[in-house]
Amino acid sequence: MSKILYIDPVGIELVQEGLQVLLDVKQPATEVKMVSLPRGPHHLEYRYYEALVLTDILQLVREAERQAFDAAVIGCFYDVGLQQAREVAERMAVVAPCEAATRIAATLGDKFSIIVGRRKWIPEMMENVVRYGMKDRLASFKSVELGVLDFHRDQAETARRLRQAGREAIEQDGAEVLILGCTATYGFYRELQAELGVPVLDPMVAAFKTAEFAADLVTRLSWSHSKIAAYESPPPAELEAWRLDEQYGHPDMAAWLRQRAKPA
Amino acid sequence: MSKILYIDPVGIELVQEGLQVLLDVKQPATEVKMVSLPRGPHHLEYRYYEALVLTDILQLVREAERQAFDAAVIGCFYDVGLQQAREVAERMAVVAPCEAATRIAATLGDKFSIIVGRRKWIPEMMENVVRYGMKDRLASFKSVELGVLDFHRDQAETARRLRQAGREAIEQDGAEVLILGCTATYGFYRELQAELGVPVLDPMVAAFKTAEFAADLVTRLSWSHSKIAAYESPPPAELEAWRLDEQYGHPDMAAWLRQRAKPA
Amino acid sequence: MSKILYIDPVGIELVQEGLQVLLDVKQPATEVKMVSLPRGPHHLEYRYYEALVLTDILQLVREAERQAFDAAVIGCFYDVGLQQAREVAERMAVVAPCEAATRIAATLGDKFSIIVGRRKWIPEMMENVVRYGMKDRLASFKSVELGVLDFHRDQAETARRLRQAGREAIEQDGAEVLILGCTATYGFYRELQAELGVPVLDPMVAAFKTAEFAADLVTRLSWSHSKIAAYESPPPAELEAWRLDEQYGHPDMAAWLRQRAKPA
Amino acid sequence: MSKILYIDPVGIELVQEGLQVLLDVKQPATEVKMVSLPRGPHHLEYRYYEALVLTDILQLVREAERQAFDAAVIGCFYDVGLQQAREVAERMAVVAPCEAATRIAATLGDKFSIIVGRRKWIPEMMENVVRYGMKDRLASFKSVELGVLDFHRDQAETARRLRQAGREAIEQDGAEVLILGCTATYGFYRELQAELGVPVLDPMVAAFKTAEFAADLVTRLSWSHSKIAAYESPPPAELEAWRLDEQYGHPDMAAWLRQRAKPA
Amino acid sequence: MSKILYIDPVGIELVQEGLQVLLDVKQPATEVKMVSLPRGPHHLEYRYYEALVLTDILQLVREAERQAFDAAVIGCFYDVGLQQAREVAERMAVVAPCEAATRIAATLGDKFSIIVGRRKWIPEMMENVVRYGMKDRLASFKSVELGVLDFHRDQAETARRLRQAGREAIEQDGAEVLILGCTATYGFYRELQAELGVPVLDPMVAAFKTAEFAADLVTRLSWSHSKIAAYESPPPAELEAWRLDEQYGHPDMAAWLRQRAKPA
Amino acid sequence: MSKILYIDPVGIELVQEGLQVLLDVKQPATEVKMVSLPRGPHHLEYRYYEALVLTDILQLVREAERQAFDAAVIGCFYDVGLQQAREVAERMAVVAPCEAATRIAATLGDKFSIIVGRRKWIPEMMENVVRYGMKDRLASFKSVELGVLDFHRDQAETARRLRQAGREAIEQDGAEVLILGCTATYGFYRELQAELGVPVLDPMVAAFKTAEFAADLVTRLSWSHSKIAAYESPPPAELEAWRLDEQYGHPDMAAWLRQRAKPA
Repeated sequence: MSKILYIDPVGIELVQEGLQVLLDVKQPATEVKMVSLPRGPHHLEYRYYEALVLTDILQLVREAERQAFDAAVIGCFYDVGLQQAREVAERMAVVAPCEAATRIAATLGDKFSIIVGRRKWIPEMMENVVRYGMKDRLASFKSVELGVLDFHRDQAETARRLRQAGREAIEQDGAEVLILGCTATYGFYRELQAELGVPVLDPMVAAFKTAEFAADLVTRLSWSHSKIAAYESPPPAELEAWRLDEQYGHPDMAAWLRQRAKPA
Repeated sequence: MSKILYIDPVGIELVQEGLQVLLDVKQPATEVKMVSLPRGPHHLEYRYYEALVLTDILQLVREAERQAFDAAVIGCFYDVGLQQAREVAERMAVVAPCEAATRIAATLGDKFSIIVGRRKWIPEMMENVVRYGMKDRLASFKSVELGVLDFHRDQAETARRLRQAGREAIEQDGAEVLILGCTATYGFYRELQAELGVPVLDPMVAAFKTAEFAADLVTRLSWSHSKIAAYESPPPAELEAWRLDEQYGHPDMAAWLRQRAKPA
Repeated sequence: MSKILYIDPVGIELVQEGLQVLLDVKQPATEVKMVSLPRGPHHLEYRYYEALVLTDILQLVREAERQAFDAAVIGCFYDVGLQQAREVAERMAVVAPCEAATRIAATLGDKFSIIVGRRKWIPEMMENVVRYGMKDRLASFKSVELGVLDFHRDQAETARRLRQAGREAIEQDGAEVLILGCTATYGFYRELQAELGVPVLDPMVAAFKTAEFAADLVTRLSWSHSKIAAYESPPPAELEAWRLDEQYGHPDMAAWLRQRAKPA
Repeated sequence: MSKILYIDPVGIELVQEGLQVLLDVKQPATEVKMVSLPRGPHHLEYRYYEALVLTDILQLVREAERQAFDAAVIGCFYDVGLQQAREVAERMAVVAPCEAATRIAATLGDKFSIIVGRRKWIPEMMENVVRYGMKDRLASFKSVELGVLDFHRDQAETARRLRQAGREAIEQDGAEVLILGCTATYGFYRELQAELGVPVLDPMVAAFKTAEFAADLVTRLSWSHSKIAAYESPPPAELEAWRLDEQYGHPDMAAWLRQRAKPA
Repeated sequence: MSKILYIDPVGIELVQEGLQVLLDVKQPATEVKMVSLPRGPHHLEYRYYEALVLTDILQLVREAERQAFDAAVIGCFYDVGLQQAREVAERMAVVAPCEAATRIAATLGDKFSIIVGRRKWIPEMMENVVRYGMKDRLASFKSVELGVLDFHRDQAETARRLRQAGREAIEQDGAEVLILGCTATYGFYRELQAELGVPVLDPMVAAFKTAEFAADLVTRLSWSHSKIAAYESPPPAELEAWRLDEQYGHPDMAAWLRQRAKPA
Repeated sequence: MSKILYIDPVGIELVQEGLQVLLDVKQPATEVKMVSLPRGPHHLEYRYYEALVLTDILQLVREAERQAFDAAVIGCFYDVGLQQAREVAERMAVVAPCEAATRIAATLGDKFSIIVGRRKWIPEMMENVVRYGMKDRLASFKSVELGVLDFHRDQAETARRLRQAGREAIEQDGAEVLILGCTATYGFYRELQAELGVPVLDPMVAAFKTAEFAADLVTRLSWSHSKIAAYESPPPAELEAWRLDEQYGHPDMAAWLRQRAKPA
C-alpha cells in the first residue's frame, strides 16, 4: 500500500473535481491526500509566483516525509521545486507532471506535442523538456491562449481549442502523442483521446500514476534519490545553527498537512 | 490485476533464479510468466544473434497479445526488437531494460553509469542511450570484461568486479546511480547497493516493474502506443496476401507460450 | 576491377529497370550482380517486415563474401541490417542508401531534404540521419503520400508529386540538395535535377557508387570494418556449437545467389 | 554614470574585502552599492538554501529598481534567481556570475574550466552552462573540495589547491581559460593568472563588470529585457488582488536596501 | 579611456553616417577610429570576397595593436577573420558583430531572430551561431531579400521589409529579441524597436559597445586572449624567416591606418 | 578517366615522396597533378598562415576548373578554404582531408581518434569535426607533440609516437579506427595499420581517393555543388567591376599550374 500526497501549489481552496480525477485512476491499495498551500497566488504562470510558493512547497514535502508519505506530487506543469524537493527528501519519492508525462509519452510514439495555455509558458517548459532529454522527441508546443484560470470558465470553448490545437499538432507538426501542459486541464483528456485517436496525457494523472510507480520502487527496492552530489541533503546542523526552520518555516504546516489534506 | 510476460530472448532453458527475482519484487496482483525461445543462441552479445532471434521475439509478442497479456518485457539490455514490437502490438505495452532503467535512473540523481560485460556492447547500448535522450545523464560505461555466460560462473569474482567498476564510476566519473547493463547480472544489485551507498538498478527488475506500470496505464487509461507513424501496425491484408505468418512464423509458438512459459 | 552485389531485400522478382539504372552509371571495370530474396514481403515500409527479412539479408551478405564480392549494397532506404552486416562481414564492404546519399549530399550544399513516400517512414529514417551525424544538415522530410508499390503505377503523377515536394523543400525549407528517400523511386532523378536546378540524389545510385568507392578502399588500402567493438564478428565456434546456420540459414542461399543474381 | 547594486545573497554581515574587490575594478563613473540579506543561510551550497533566499532576492531586485539602480548583480555562482529577477525587473538589467564569466571566457579561448569548491555543486552549475550554450566550450569542472566558508580560512592552502586544479585543467583537460566557480574566491585570481599564464576569471568581478556593460546598454540604447514571453512581468493587479507583497514581502526591505547597502 | 578601431572591411570610402552611429552611443572617454580597406570588394556577401579581404583585415589588426588601440571591431556580420585576428593579436581585444549581438540578445530574452538580407547568407551565419553556442536560442533567420548595397537605396522600403520580417519573427517564430544581421542596416534599429516593442540590436552598435567592454577588461584586468592552443600566435621567427610580411603585407598599411581612419 | 589536382597549400618545393603516395593508390584511369604555392609559409599550423595562403588556393582552384580538372584536393587537414572553393567552383568537385577521412572512418567503426601533431591544432580541427556531423563519433584527439616539419626528421621516433598514441586511443579512449591528422604524416599508415590491427587512415590518401569518387559523381551524374545558398558563386560582373582578379590574382597562376604541377 502506498501513501501519496498530491500538492496543488497555489493558495486557493482545493477543487473537488481535481481530487476526483485521482480517485478515478488510482490503484486500489493507494491512499491519496491532496493539499493546497496556506497562502499564495492563484496560479503559477510567472516565475515570480513560483519563487513565492517554493519555500512552502518544500516545507510541505519535508512535512510529508515526516508524516510517512511514500511519494509526493508537485502538481504544476512547470515542475516547480522538483529538484529542490529531491534534495530535501531523504527517501520519499518526489514526482512532477512534465517529467512524468514526457517520459510516458516517449514510450508511446516517436514525437509528442505539448498543448499549453499561453506562449509565456513555453520557454520555461522547454528548459524542462531539454533537461529531461526529450528535446528531440518534442514535435511542438501549441498554445490555446487561455490562462490557467480560464480552462474551466467555458469548458466547451476550452475543449474546442484543445481539439483544434491537437489536430494541428498531429497533422502539421508530426505529433503522435499529446500532452496537456497544465494541471488545470483536468477533465478533458478522455474525450480528446477518443476524438483524436492518439494518446492524450493528462499531466495530473501522469504525475500521480508515476508517483504510485515511484513509491513502489522506493518501498520494494529502496530505489530512491542518490544522496551523492545533485541530491545531497543540507546538513541538519546548519539548519539548526542558522535557525532556518524558524525563519522560513510555516508555523503550522504540520497541522495544515494533517487537517487540510483531502483524504480519499 | 496485470498479466505480464517476461521474454528471455535466447534459445536456452529458463533459469529458475531469474524468475525468482521477479517473484520477489512483483505487486501482489501481478501475474508473471517467463518464457525463453524455442531456438537460438545462448546469449545476444552480437548484433547478428539479435537479428536471428528477432522474428521469434516478435511472434511471441504477437502471440502474447492474443493470449491477453497486458505487457511484455523483452529481457535483453540491448532492448532488441523494442520498437518493432511496439509496431506489431495493437494495445499491449512492451518494455525493455535499457529504456526502463535509464529513465528510472534519471529521476534518482543527475548522472548514472552503466556497468557492462564487454567493450563490444558499448556502441549499440550508446545508440539506445542517445535514442532515449539520456546521453547527457550518462557518466560513463564501465566494462568488467565478462561475457554474458560468465557472470554466474564465479559469483564472488563477478561481485568483486562489479563493485570495483561501480566505485570507479562514482569516484572518478561522477556517477550518482548505477545500472547493471545485462539481464544476466541478476542477483547482484542488492548487495552492491548496500555496499556502495547509491541506487543500483537491476535491469531485469527495472524492466519488469516498468511493465507493471505500463500495464496499469494501458488498462486504466488506454495510454498505449500511438498508431500514427512510428508504431503504425502492418495491415493484416498484406500479411495474409504475402503469407508472411506461414513463411516466418514458428508453427507452435502459441503452444510454446502456453506450455513453456513459467507461471508464477 | 570490383565485384559488387546489390541486394533488393524483398521477396519479389527483380525489376529489370532497376538493374539498368546501375548499368548506366557503373565504372567500366565494375561487375554488378543484383538479387532479391527467396521469400519475403513485397516492400519494407514496416519495421516488422524489416525484421522478417533481416536474417536472409545477412545470409546473403555472408554468402556474398564467400563468393568473393568486394562490396554489397542493401537496397532499402531504411538501411536495414547495415550495422549487422558490417559485423558479420569479415572484409567485404557493406553499403546502404541513406548513409551513402546523406554523406554525398552533405558535400554538395549546406542543407538537404529527403522526399519520402509516407509519413510512417520518417521516424525510422530520422534515427538514421541522427546516427550518421546529419541532423543539422537536414532541411526537412517531405512526404508525397505514396506507398513503395505506388511509385511506378502512375509515373506522371509520381513525377508531379516529387517535383512539388522538391520545390517546397527548396523554397520553404531551405534545401539546396534533394534526396529521394526510397529505392523504388529509380528513374526519376535526372529529370527532377534538370527541372529543379539542384542536385537530386537517387538512393540506389548513391549507394551503388559508394559501394564502388568502398570496394576500391578495401582492395587497394585494406580500409575495411574495424573488428574491435562495434563490428567484432561472432566467433565461428559459437555458430557451430549452437547450430545457428542450420537453424536460421536458408538451405540453398548459396545456389540462390549464384543462379538468381542478375549479372551485368 | 551607472548605479549598480551587488547583492550578496546570504544572511550574514557583508565582508568588506568583497566590496574592495569591486572598488578596485570599477569605472570611475560607476556608483556601487553592496548589500546582503536580512536573514538566511551563510552560504548557498544547497538548492534548498537557494530556495529559501529566493523571495528576498527578488524583493531586493524590485526595490532596487524603485530606487533607480541601473543594474543588479546576484552574487552567487549558481546564478540563483537570475531568470526570475529578469521577469520582475521592468527595465533594470540583472546579471549573475556564471553567465557573465562563461560568456567572457568564451571570447578569450576555445575552452575553459570552472574550478568549484565541492562536487555537490557541479550538476546545478552544469545546467547553467548548458542553458548558456557553453557546454561545448567547457573543458572540465575541477573540484578543490572546499566549502564556501572554507576558502578564506587558510588562504595559502586555498591558493595551493586552486593552482593545482588550474594546472590540471590546463594540462590534462585542455583548458585555455579558468573561471573560479564561487564568489567567495575573491582575492585569488590575480596571482593565479600571473602564475598560470592564462586568464583567470573572478566571478564577482566578471559579473560586476558585465553589470556596468549591461547598465550602459540599458541607459544609452534601451536594450533591456524583452517583455514578451520569457520575461513577461506579472500583472500588478494580481499582486494586489492576492496581496502577495503583504504575504511574502519583507516589511522593511526598502529601508534595508537604503541603509544597509554599503555605498562606495 | 579606451581607444577603439572599427574596421569596415570593404574597399570603399567610409560612409559618414556609419561613424555617426558610433559617436552617438559611445562612452564619453572612448576614442573611436573607423577605417575601410585600401582595396577590395564593396560588400562581403560571398565567402570568396571574405577570403580576399582577410589578409588585409589581419594586417590592420596587427597594425592597430602596434598603434596602441585597446580593441578592434571587424565590422561584418559574418565575423570574418575574428578567430584569426585573436590569434595574431597579442593583447588587444578583437570583437565582431554576430558574436557580440547574439550574446547580448541571449540575456534579453529566451529566443531571438536574425533578420538577414539574402538567403545566401544564412548557412555561414548559422555556423557562427552554432560556434557561439546560441543555436537553441535562435528562433529563426528571416530574409528580406535585399543585398548589402540595397539597404540604403530606398530606406522606406527597407524599413517596411525589416518591420514585416520582425513582426513575423515575433508572432510566428517565437522571437522575443531581434538582431539586424548586416552592419549596413545602421540607422534602422531605434525606430523598429519603438514600433515592435522588443529590443532590436544593431550589429554595428552591439559590436562597438562590446569592444568598449572588452577593452575595459583588458586594461583593468588583463583578461585578454589566452595564448595557449586556439589563439597561440605564430612565432615571429617564422614570419621573418619566410618573409611573410614582405610577401603578404600591404606596404603602407601603417600609414593607411594613421591617415585614413576617421577619428571621432 | 578523371583528372585530379592535388594542392599542397604551402610555399615550398613539392616533396616527391608525397606524390608517390598518390601514384601508389590511384585508379588506373586517373590522371593526377600535384602543385604547391608560388609563395607562402612552410606549414599551416596557425590560422594566420591559413589566411595568408587562402587567396592563392582559391586562384588555383579557379584556374584548375579552367584547365578542365574534374576535382581538386586541398591538402591540409584543417581543410583550409574548402567551403570557399566550393563556392567559386562552378562544377569541379573540391575535397579536403578531414572531411574525407572522418566520413570514411565513420563507416568502418563506431568511433575514431585523430592523431595530431600539436595541441594547438585541436580547436580548429574540432570545429570541422562538428561541422561534418562527426562529434559523436570522435573518441579523442591525441597529440604527439611534433610540428608539421618534424614528422620526417626522425621517422623512427615519429612512428614510435604515432604507435603509442594510437594504442592509447584504442585501449583507453575507445577508438576503433585511427586517422592521422596531418598530410605531412604520409608514409606511416600502412605499417601502423598492420601493427595496431585497426584501419589507419592517411589523410592525403583519404582525400585523394574521395576526389576520385567525387569526380566520378560529377562526370557521370552531374552531382556537383548546389548553386543555391551556401555555394552560390559570386557574380562575374562584380569581380569585373571591382577588378578583383587584377587586385588579388596571382599574375602567372595559370602558368604556374600548367608548368609546376607535377604530372603523374
